[in-house]
Amino acid sequence: MSDAAAKDVVSRLSVPVESIQYNEQGLVPAIVQDYLDGTVLMMAWMNQESLGRTLESGETWFWSRSRQAYWHKGETSGHTQKVKTIRYDCDSDALLVTVEQIGDIACHKGERSCFHNIETAIAPPRADTLSQVFDVICDRRDNPNPDSYTCKLLAGGDNKILKKVGEESAEVVMACKDDDQDDIAGEVADLFYHTLVAMAHHQVDIKDVYRKLQSRRR
Amino acid sequence: MSDAAAKDVVSRLSVPVESIQYNEQGLVPAIVQDYLDGTVLMMAWMNQESLGRTLESGETWFWSRSRQAYWHKGETSGHTQKVKTIRYDCDSDALLVTVEQIGDIACHKGERSCFHNIETAIAPPRADTLSQVFDVICDRRDNPNPDSYTCKLLAGGDNKILKKVGEESAEVVMACKDDDQDDIAGEVADLFYHTLVAMAHHQVDIKDVYRKLQSRRR
Repeated sequence: MSDAAAKDVVSRLSVPVESIQYNEQGLVPAIVQDYLDGTVLMMAWMNQESLGRTLESGETWFWSRSRQAYWHKGETSGHTQKVKTIRYDCDSDALLVTVEQIGDIACHKGERSCFHNIETAIAPPRADTLSQVFDVICDRRDNPNPDSYTCKLLAGGDNKILKKVGEESAEVVMACKDDDQDDIAGEVADLFYHTLVAMAHHQVDIKDVYRKLQSRRR
Repeated sequence: MSDAAAKDVVSRLSVPVESIQYNEQGLVPAIVQDYLDGTVLMMAWMNQESLGRTLESGETWFWSRSRQAYWHKGETSGHTQKVKTIRYDCDSDALLVTVEQIGDIACHKGERSCFHNIETAIAPPRADTLSQVFDVICDRRDNPNPDSYTCKLLAGGDNKILKKVGEESAEVVMACKDDDQDDIAGEVADLFYHTLVAMAHHQVDIKDVYRKLQSRRR
């Protein structure tokens, strides 16, 4: 989306700046989320004026409590956030802002998300299941383990991986013809997984696919 | 996951309850996110004791500022939240909690997410791209528009939809064989889209596929 188009989208959002419930310091928490995969990138604070500047510019503006100053996110780093949507919750006392994160880095420590502190196998950084599975596949590709099915597939290259893509798509077709819902869900899971392996093998990121899908929605 | 297993997962999370930066009221904002598709369900507040109870029980406990009382989410409605992961941000002053939302309803107004106020075509309720595309397809299915490509596919039934699934999987195979990354991303987008149409036609939800994929990761 062009800058002008992004600005246009934001100016059409009817966020009732005046009716938002600010706290005793005049602030409201703003949760910032990636628009492609739903990852929560950061949480910061807005006041009425910074929310106004955000709506006006199409980029996020916060209030820095430590510096007691307006903060145009990315002004120095270049990692600005182009606003896609702004929602407020049922109490009007929290904002949810979806953004296109320029540079894919939101945290001042150089990480994608500020919520990077706990690193365990069950706390993957991307928010949606398909991205999580894709990240595990890429990790197997980059750190091979001979017992892993994914590694065996990758070792077989295109001919082994793509044979499975064809096979699993035929199994989706058969499960649909049988109208067996549980079977359809399982076969689609298999098809998606093997397609992600093909993508990992060819260094295509899941976000590239998400961008294609988003661009077709307009 | 069984309740015991969920509890076990949570007890292994090393959230430094004592080191979290609580505000002047002793509270820290907790963002609650669906573990399957990344949708932000709600934002509420925890103090040290409610964070402890959350870690201990494997279900979310908050501090209600209006009632000045501990609040075991779902205690009356049954819509409890089984905790999958807890992360804190780079300043240790915000928590991100991923959960399995029982009943798929987090908001006291009966909605899935508390952030349901702004309803526009560009603010869909589910957070990840694939779920958003799936929701649009289901909307086309339920509110047919003769000019829509999706509606034409659905009107053709299995034989029309599944022919496209087969065709698009062959195109993914060819794009991989050509090692053309942009083409691969585009063909995978096509394959995913047509597979989602088949699922919508058979009333299979994307979350059923995500659950299959998550269960295989353990």
